[in-house]
Amino acid sequence: MVSSNNNKDMVVTPWEVTGEVDYDRLIRDFGTQPITSQILKKITDKTGKLHLQLQRRIFFSHRDLDTVLKLYDEGTKFVLYTGRGPSGPVHIGHLIPWLFSLHLQEKFGARLYFQMTDDEKFLINDNINLQHTKKYAYENALDLIALGFKPDKTFVIYDVEDIDLLYDITLEIAKRITYSTAKASFGFKDSTNIGWVFWPAIQAAPCFIHKKLTGENVPALIPAAIDQDPYWRVTRDIAPKLGYHKPAQIHCRFLPGLGSGGKMSASKPETSIFTMDSPEVVKRKIWNAFTGGKPTAAEQRKTGGIPSICSIYQYFFYLFEEDDKKLFERENRCKAGEILCGECKQELFFRLNKFLEEHQKRRERAKDVIEQYHIKR
Amino acid sequence: MVSSNNNKDMVVTPWEVTGEVDYDRLIRDFGTQPITSQILKKITDKTGKLHLQLQRRIFFSHRDLDTVLKLYDEGTKFVLYTGRGPSGPVHIGHLIPWLFSLHLQEKFGARLYFQMTDDEKFLINDNINLQHTKKYAYENALDLIALGFKPDKTFVIYDVEDIDLLYDITLEIAKRITYSTAKASFGFKDSTNIGWVFWPAIQAAPCFIHKKLTGENVPALIPAAIDQDPYWRVTRDIAPKLGYHKPAQIHCRFLPGLGSGGKMSASKPETSIFTMDSPEVVKRKIWNAFTGGKPTAAEQRKTGGIPSICSIYQYFFYLFEEDDKKLFERENRCKAGEILCGECKQELFFRLNKFLEEHQKRRERAKDVIEQYHIKR
Repeated sequence: MVSSNNNKDMVVTPWEVTGEVDYDRLIRDFGTQPITSQILKKITDKTGKLHLQLQRRIFFSHRDLDTVLKLYDEGTKFVLYTGRGPSGPVHIGHLIPWLFSLHLQEKFGARLYFQMTDDEKFLINDNINLQHTKKYAYENALDLIALGFKPDKTFVIYDVEDIDLLYDITLEIAKRITYSTAKASFGFKDSTNIGWVFWPAIQAAPCFIHKKLTGENVPALIPAAIDQDPYWRVTRDIAPKLGYHKPAQIHCRFLPGLGSGGKMSASKPETSIFTMDSPEVVKRKIWNAFTGGKPTAAEQRKTGGIPSICSIYQYFFYLFEEDDKKLFERENRCKAGEILCGECKQELFFRLNKFLEEHQKRRERAKDVIEQYHIKR
Repeated sequence: MVSSNNNKDMVVTPWEVTGEVDYDRLIRDFGTQPITSQILKKITDKTGKLHLQLQRRIFFSHRDLDTVLKLYDEGTKFVLYTGRGPSGPVHIGHLIPWLFSLHLQEKFGARLYFQMTDDEKFLINDNINLQHTKKYAYENALDLIALGFKPDKTFVIYDVEDIDLLYDITLEIAKRITYSTAKASFGFKDSTNIGWVFWPAIQAAPCFIHKKLTGENVPALIPAAIDQDPYWRVTRDIAPKLGYHKPAQIHCRFLPGLGSGGKMSASKPETSIFTMDSPEVVKRKIWNAFTGGKPTAAEQRKTGGIPSICSIYQYFFYLFEEDDKKLFERENRCKAGEILCGECKQELFFRLNKFLEEHQKRRERAKDVIEQYHIKR
């Protein structure tokens, strides 16, 4: 996997993920809890077969997931909350927590509040304007909807447009976060703009919006990549003071890019598969991908490949081989030199395109229903 | 007047005004311009007789008022922008810039944007909640409307309710203010909450809202007490970068309280006359007021009183003696020992009550029309 002992260059913050990521160390450093087999058993009791992302520990860490499950057993439901910073097109890596949220929505009947942070992306990027982030808020919502979320249980919040819904809760939160705390949690500097300084309060607000809309006081469960954790630590401190449950979290790994190391990132488009990529583009990116193969076919046949460093293998692991047995077979055949990289690339290309073709059709249809998913007043 | 050479204790910031205020020093310290006789002449050309508050230099300082008048001559109108922090009831001191805004609205046909900062007051006061500030936003708007503003030219913005109108402009502003600049301008500390840190961007937004609503790019003229100046310095730096005119300002003095020195302040209710005070309460406050009188009537008849330090005299000067000649007479008769404090108090009590009685009636009627003054989308 992408974890490594040689991780002195690892940087994981809400705005930057670089270097090889050591997930065990993140659990220790961030002070979160590993997802234990005990918790997985509790989940299986409710959902039947474990979702691939739990089975493979792509979701590997949590805060208060046990509490949420206990409350659920006692009759208190939960809502899901996740989001997206709409600065550009969605790539496959973004879909991971969304697909998992969809699974939880279906199995637990949970509402999803989904925040499009068009304000944040504007504030933190010098070179993009609000038209840009609002455009991508729309575009990215199409990708979300295309995954199959139900409109009666899915509430997309566009920050700039829906600030009236968030603002009173945001103020209650902001009043309870000093600049000092924000600086320590988010690494703000004197040169940080005051919009950015305020913004963590806006990211926290959807944790508590369900009560405002329905009167029900239930916890929010946040599926998100672990780099977002600092936001929720501050929010968790404040929640009880405002009479809410602490938001619980379930943390996933980063889908590696097609290069060598590092998460899939829109800032490196050649190593990322975007949902709107054409088959030609997908083909080029896959053919140029970093693998665990050897310099020559002969050598690979002799000594085998290294799936643990192979970006193509990660795609099967994360998304495109649901059958554990087949995944294991692929891994072993690679190690034994029985398959070469071209074969895996060809197979991934086929599966990825099949997925994207279907996704793009659903995404087109989403244009007709997107308003049904917009949070209502 | 309240200015003094002995002003080492003078503190004037947007959140604190204490000590004897030296207005000439404020012009120097804040780097604003005095209102010259040349500017007054230009105004008289347009308005006829000077308003009492200009005639007596209650409005004494400005930024870019000359530019606004020049643009007006060339056919570019301006809008007015002022506001109120609704943490409690309105006192007579608050009415001074409002009455002046009303005069400018009438003489120049200018729209008034009026910001009720229910968010700010919540953020900066530990002990009040949003219900409190929203309640006073409503109550204070009644006082504004009671003064005679026209609904088709007066647009009250309630920050919490109308944040959707302000937010995109606010983001554009916030992105261009670093924490460092905010700290230097507003005295923020590490212990300041992040809502307060962000808030100056919200206060700046109404300067630019007219263009969003109408498409017209005209300057805003801000009549306000001079303690609010730091807000606008930062806003003025940003305006040209966003394609707006710099907001111009016209600064007024603080109506002194009924105690000895210091501005009228809601935090010292016994030295402030509130618009809803009953005649009995007004009588008590006036009778207890600090004057320039002498310890005994005999001494006062002999050596005269000192109008320049008398809080009762200030009331005539600021609001309740429009006739300069009569004001001058009152001052001279006091200095000569020809009148005693009781006479002035009696007369002020009479005029103040007449004003309040009428104001309270209009304020009651304002309840039926308050929605007409709420800014429209």
